[in-house]
Amino acid sequence: MRLHFTKMEGLGNDYIYFDGINQKIPMDKEFITKISDRHFGIGSDGMIVILASDKYDFKMRMFNLDGSEAMMCGNGIRCFAKFIYDHKLSDKHVLKIETKSGLRIVELLFEDGRCIGAKVNMGKPILRCKEIPCIYDKEKMINEAMIVDDHEYHLTTISMGNPHTVIFVDDLEILDLAVLGPKFEHHELFPESVNTEFVQVVNEQYIKMRVWERGSGETMACGTGACASMYASYLNGYTKDKVIVQLLGGCLEIEYLDGIIMMSGPAVNVFEGIIEI
Amino acid sequence: MRLHFTKMEGLGNDYIYFDGINQKIPMDKEFITKISDRHFGIGSDGMIVILASDKYDFKMRMFNLDGSEAMMCGNGIRCFAKFIYDHKLSDKHVLKIETKSGLRIVELLFEDGRCIGAKVNMGKPILRCKEIPCIYDKEKMINEAMIVDDHEYHLTTISMGNPHTVIFVDDLEILDLAVLGPKFEHHELFPESVNTEFVQVVNEQYIKMRVWERGSGETMACGTGACASMYASYLNGYTKDKVIVQLLGGCLEIEYLDGIIMMSGPAVNVFEGIIEI
Repeated sequence: MRLHFTKMEGLGNDYIYFDGINQKIPMDKEFITKISDRHFGIGSDGMIVILASDKYDFKMRMFNLDGSEAMMCGNGIRCFAKFIYDHKLSDKHVLKIETKSGLRIVELLFEDGRCIGAKVNMGKPILRCKEIPCIYDKEKMINEAMIVDDHEYHLTTISMGNPHTVIFVDDLEILDLAVLGPKFEHHELFPESVNTEFVQVVNEQYIKMRVWERGSGETMACGTGACASMYASYLNGYTKDKVIVQLLGGCLEIEYLDGIIMMSGPAVNVFEGIIEI
Repeated sequence: MRLHFTKMEGLGNDYIYFDGINQKIPMDKEFITKISDRHFGIGSDGMIVILASDKYDFKMRMFNLDGSEAMMCGNGIRCFAKFIYDHKLSDKHVLKIETKSGLRIVELLFEDGRCIGAKVNMGKPILRCKEIPCIYDKEKMINEAMIVDDHEYHLTTISMGNPHTVIFVDDLEILDLAVLGPKFEHHELFPESVNTEFVQVVNEQYIKMRVWERGSGETMACGTGACASMYASYLNGYTKDKVIVQLLGGCLEIEYLDGIIMMSGPAVNVFEGIIEI
């Protein structure tokens, strides 16, 4: 059997995209780990399948490279929306997409008539410690001083569907994340662990960020982490409500609007392929 | 411009293969590093281009992922030969291929009518220290005891066009190559550095090997390293003249025949693709 796929990336976060409406796509662990392998397979951070939805326009199922199913991915859903448009599965410019984290509304972005990215409604940021979860004696943790390894850090902790703690620093480049990241990842404050964003504010419309993702280590980009970083910067009065976030893998524009976080960023077609299985 | 390519691998050593006879392929550093990138590009260990040859059947040009041109690669040339056959560029079963290391004769291997690998004439092993190069007071270095970091190792040093030193051990699994490898890689014995193979002899027709490649660290497979390991095993009386070499990435069959090393191994088509540039 020959399966058509498209390799796409958003800020270097790359998935293998399959049209699962017009093709029957295997979704077992063996298939996913095989195609995701970067030497023996196509190579990717995982697989994303475009499916029909009972409730909305389309349904997204995404899988990590170990075959486990993932909830949602900001970089992935932008490419998902571009795939639908480019492959003429729909001509809508605003798509309602069913994900394991619920409905996501995605608006396509165009340049010279070509879809170059998307703007995603990332939902409401959550500050209540209990909901994040974060074990702390106040209701919220905004700019709270913590001593970790004899050094004082100021933490702002936010859930964007997954837990994030944001730490402002003067210079991102000099940080040794491989040492620093695990201190927060495994800290007793966070019973379900945490993604840690280190943020350098450049000006009130531009911040830089590096992220240590729970279970993964330092990654080139984390969409929900960029949203948490923007909101923490805004809450602490460092920035306005619309910010460019510079990550290692590229830039996102994050806006806080009527209680909702909107994320705009690129979606790139890397190549089209056919695999025989 | 749309370019057709095939992603192929031999023991996990994966390259992007382009027919450069019927397509004009860019061979500049920018293009190669871009397509080789595993997140933003197709992802590979490098690029291999099939070209016409003035002297032989075909000419192979291969490039590392940093854009530099490479001499030869045992895993790459097997896939190169399969590509030619599968894409009907020739129906010959024995191909004369021009490489930067000179002529290589490659015989295709078939199973159920499909090309599944190739047997490559890897040339003569060289033992003279001066030619390897290895700075040593004897003409050859066969099973010579050396003290490295207060531990005695026995080295057999061979050139297969590139320098190798082979060390026999009782148990491969327990070795910490990240610590051990650099001790040999940067040893004063080897003015042009060295690839180091750690070999465990299982029986006289089967050896296991791990390799620390100069400039790359531990890799899943090294064709010339497998040849050097087989020949060192044979010279030291541990094996016969035909051996299965088990590497992390899979198995090769290496034979010493009339002064020449022959290497047989798999060549695998991973997928066909089209990239827009």
